[in-house]
Amino acid sequence: MIIDAARAGKAVFCEKPISLTLEDATEILRVLEETGAFLQMGFQRRFDAAYVAARRKVEEGAIGSPVVFTSISRDPFRPPLEFCDPKVSGGLIADMGIHDFDVARMYMGEVKSVHAIGGTLAYPEMNDVGDIDNAIVNMEFASGALGVVELSRNAVFGYDIRGEIWGTEGSIQIGYFRQTPIVMMTKTGIAHDAVPYFFERFESAYLTQIQDFVENVRNGRGPSVTGADAVAAMRISLAANASFREKRPVEVEIARNHG
Amino acid sequence: MIIDAARAGKAVFCEKPISLTLEDATEILRVLEETGAFLQMGFQRRFDAAYVAARRKVEEGAIGSPVVFTSISRDPFRPPLEFCDPKVSGGLIADMGIHDFDVARMYMGEVKSVHAIGGTLAYPEMNDVGDIDNAIVNMEFASGALGVVELSRNAVFGYDIRGEIWGTEGSIQIGYFRQTPIVMMTKTGIAHDAVPYFFERFESAYLTQIQDFVENVRNGRGPSVTGADAVAAMRISLAANASFREKRPVEVEIARNHG
Amino acid sequence: MIIDAARAGKAVFCEKPISLTLEDATEILRVLEETGAFLQMGFQRRFDAAYVAARRKVEEGAIGSPVVFTSISRDPFRPPLEFCDPKVSGGLIADMGIHDFDVARMYMGEVKSVHAIGGTLAYPEMNDVGDIDNAIVNMEFASGALGVVELSRNAVFGYDIRGEIWGTEGSIQIGYFRQTPIVMMTKTGIAHDAVPYFFERFESAYLTQIQDFVENVRNGRGPSVTGADAVAAMRISLAANASFREKRPVEVEIARNHG
Amino acid sequence: MIIDAARAGKAVFCEKPISLTLEDATEILRVLEETGAFLQMGFQRRFDAAYVAARRKVEEGAIGSPVVFTSISRDPFRPPLEFCDPKVSGGLIADMGIHDFDVARMYMGEVKSVHAIGGTLAYPEMNDVGDIDNAIVNMEFASGALGVVELSRNAVFGYDIRGEIWGTEGSIQIGYFRQTPIVMMTKTGIAHDAVPYFFERFESAYLTQIQDFVENVRNGRGPSVTGADAVAAMRISLAANASFREKRPVEVEIARNHG
Repeated sequence: MIIDAARAGKAVFCEKPISLTLEDATEILRVLEETGAFLQMGFQRRFDAAYVAARRKVEEGAIGSPVVFTSISRDPFRPPLEFCDPKVSGGLIADMGIHDFDVARMYMGEVKSVHAIGGTLAYPEMNDVGDIDNAIVNMEFASGALGVVELSRNAVFGYDIRGEIWGTEGSIQIGYFRQTPIVMMTKTGIAHDAVPYFFERFESAYLTQIQDFVENVRNGRGPSVTGADAVAAMRISLAANASFREKRPVEVEIARNHG
Repeated sequence: MIIDAARAGKAVFCEKPISLTLEDATEILRVLEETGAFLQMGFQRRFDAAYVAARRKVEEGAIGSPVVFTSISRDPFRPPLEFCDPKVSGGLIADMGIHDFDVARMYMGEVKSVHAIGGTLAYPEMNDVGDIDNAIVNMEFASGALGVVELSRNAVFGYDIRGEIWGTEGSIQIGYFRQTPIVMMTKTGIAHDAVPYFFERFESAYLTQIQDFVENVRNGRGPSVTGADAVAAMRISLAANASFREKRPVEVEIARNHG
Repeated sequence: MIIDAARAGKAVFCEKPISLTLEDATEILRVLEETGAFLQMGFQRRFDAAYVAARRKVEEGAIGSPVVFTSISRDPFRPPLEFCDPKVSGGLIADMGIHDFDVARMYMGEVKSVHAIGGTLAYPEMNDVGDIDNAIVNMEFASGALGVVELSRNAVFGYDIRGEIWGTEGSIQIGYFRQTPIVMMTKTGIAHDAVPYFFERFESAYLTQIQDFVENVRNGRGPSVTGADAVAAMRISLAANASFREKRPVEVEIARNHG
Repeated sequence: MIIDAARAGKAVFCEKPISLTLEDATEILRVLEETGAFLQMGFQRRFDAAYVAARRKVEEGAIGSPVVFTSISRDPFRPPLEFCDPKVSGGLIADMGIHDFDVARMYMGEVKSVHAIGGTLAYPEMNDVGDIDNAIVNMEFASGALGVVELSRNAVFGYDIRGEIWGTEGSIQIGYFRQTPIVMMTKTGIAHDAVPYFFERFESAYLTQIQDFVENVRNGRGPSVTGADAVAAMRISLAANASFREKRPVEVEIARNHG
């Protein structure tokens, strides 16, 4: 579809994944280059107010030089089993982690190697389709900096998206979001309201992302998130999957920037 | 304008204040009753997610019986002096406090008497136009419950809107709102992002409020906030103003509900 | 006992109240002056890390000039009825509020007048002994600044001690204390651990206070909290009690400093 | 010294590390077994109120079955270079991580394998002595659960000790500790007070730990933390060091429990 649209001269907005295989993705990038077509990838976290504010703080030098990146993504439930099949979803690490790998690159630059561990710890039935429900992926960046991504399908209380950019002069934590600024103090304790679910958490990021796409096209600007960005995150996912299967660290082939 | 619109058979949405005098307000209510016209008042806090969630918790009995209501409203700066003139604005207590008096009624029922103190403590130039910049109003409700409203024009860090509903079985605090869930940890301390300004704080409440108005009109439902509600909050403001001038507690004439 | 100890040349540490009547207190102060005896009053909040840190911030000018002081003191339960009798305890306002009035003076200077409202809202049986369980006292300081004290006996979740010093350039909030830095995120919400009870809350303040007393005596320094401070807080309590009974603002006679 | 004390019939309290080599530690355990001497190891986090409360919550089943353990330990500065020499300190991973490995075992049981990455990212001069200043160690537990430890020497704002126990039914976060419950709201933002340094953070844990040791000896109870616990944590450290050097996951030999 991207190739057809690109050949037809349309500007394209594409949700992840750009494709199911690296070969298809490479072909897409080639056609984009050939046709000069506009493609912007949908990685909504890049447009979320918290991630944007953190990025600005990093760029301002508020925490010195970033040396460790931590990212936590946890879904409140597992998908229906038919969508858990790694042949469809890419498996937990690729399906969920791609957003973490994308923001990792945004804050820290390219990833050089990864090592992944994981297990089926909350939903035994996922073993039947060959997927896992919890994983930890650590990363070494080309810069020498370090990273870790924690993924889970059992955030029973809501959609748990957090992270930290750890620098030589301090830390920026992207914390859990509260839907309202209410605090309850009762005999059972001190409680905030609940963590929001996916659409509440990222509603305005999705809106901002589409506005950004439209403005980029209208004003003849380049895409904010390129196809090459999508391929780079995919390469990290694939390396992490290979690491998990082969129980060893795996090098990531760093995509050259021709999005 | 309300009267003209009502006579023309229009549904009316009106921002506070409904009028500058109690006489005009009473006349408006009379015409509304006569014509059966639809009037909904704009008190956006009633549509803010935090105030709505707190109301639901109170109605569910989560804090037992509410016995004290505290409300803090603080603007980040004083208005231009020409708008501070109490003849135009009604003065600090009426201009800012009317929202607090309205939500006080929403959570706690009618106010029986008030006592106000205040002063020009941050902007000496406000003395020139006869207004104050900080005030505290305490309230006795018809139910016997207690309340206190704190008003200020010098919340230099943002728009500081907070409150607490204190019950026999616990407390609901409506806290300060953070624009993003970011926490910075640096040598200078642990800091959240800043408190938002007025339009960020209540943007979605204003939207929800207008949607509610439209749906009420479309579905033939009564207004969510009536002209009588506006008059009731106005009576509390006027009593608080009188209390401040006369340095004594003042009874509030309780509006009968014919909005 | 204070008088006997003073005449015997002992250094005296005295918990509040210094006496049950103003007459006795005045006599105590007179004997202290006559004998030159050392008396230090026990107002442990002045030694609590939070109140101390807030005081230092105020003195550093971190919030500009303080213009409003808010203080909340709430006990987790009512005392046994025999101790609620105002003839024994002084009543809710004097018994609990004296600590708030003392720190009010510490941050803001002398209180010029007070106005109190209150009621028996949580424990109807307190009516039998003539005491109330919730009260709000507002204050005008000699400086023109404003204050409000909220008192309650029904903080069912723990010992709720909070406050705010509101300045022309910002705010210092003294918030609720958490016993441990644990946060629970479960299906039922996001919860901190509970608020501590009295002795956990002020354990180290009591220790610091006694150390301070001993060091003052050893080093021949004056007392950190004087008998005159105790009398000044008592005068505010008495004025607030009178205001509550007479339903009008009452002037506070300002104690001269000869402690 | 432990062996001498054990042979002399003394009860021994020993700070980590129990020894510099596994051989010495094994010999110590052997002598303890032979003499029946009492040894309690100093792992003060096990006595910290937050870690204790979290443990109780886990044991109560509050978060279901724990599946991921995350632990962050960050020192506010690097030690003097002569103490950074891995031949003296064991290197960052062993020197700092041993506490994290110990609490990991406490919450999650034995560790089966580890994989470590790290780098000299904040203090280039540490390269001269062959140590690193940041590391990430991931862990697979014998139960199949997952873990990650983040270590750093550049927490410039204080002593940053945090963790999370992630379960099938929720999460317990052990958060950053605030010295006082003060919040400042000024033009520069909303800020807590600073994070405490080491001795403030764990002062009461150290006290509790020694009281526990004394009571165990007095009452003829076994040690709360055994020499075998110390050896088990040491084995994890050594495996993590080996993993870092060899750039591959390393199995941990699980200590048999004969402390």
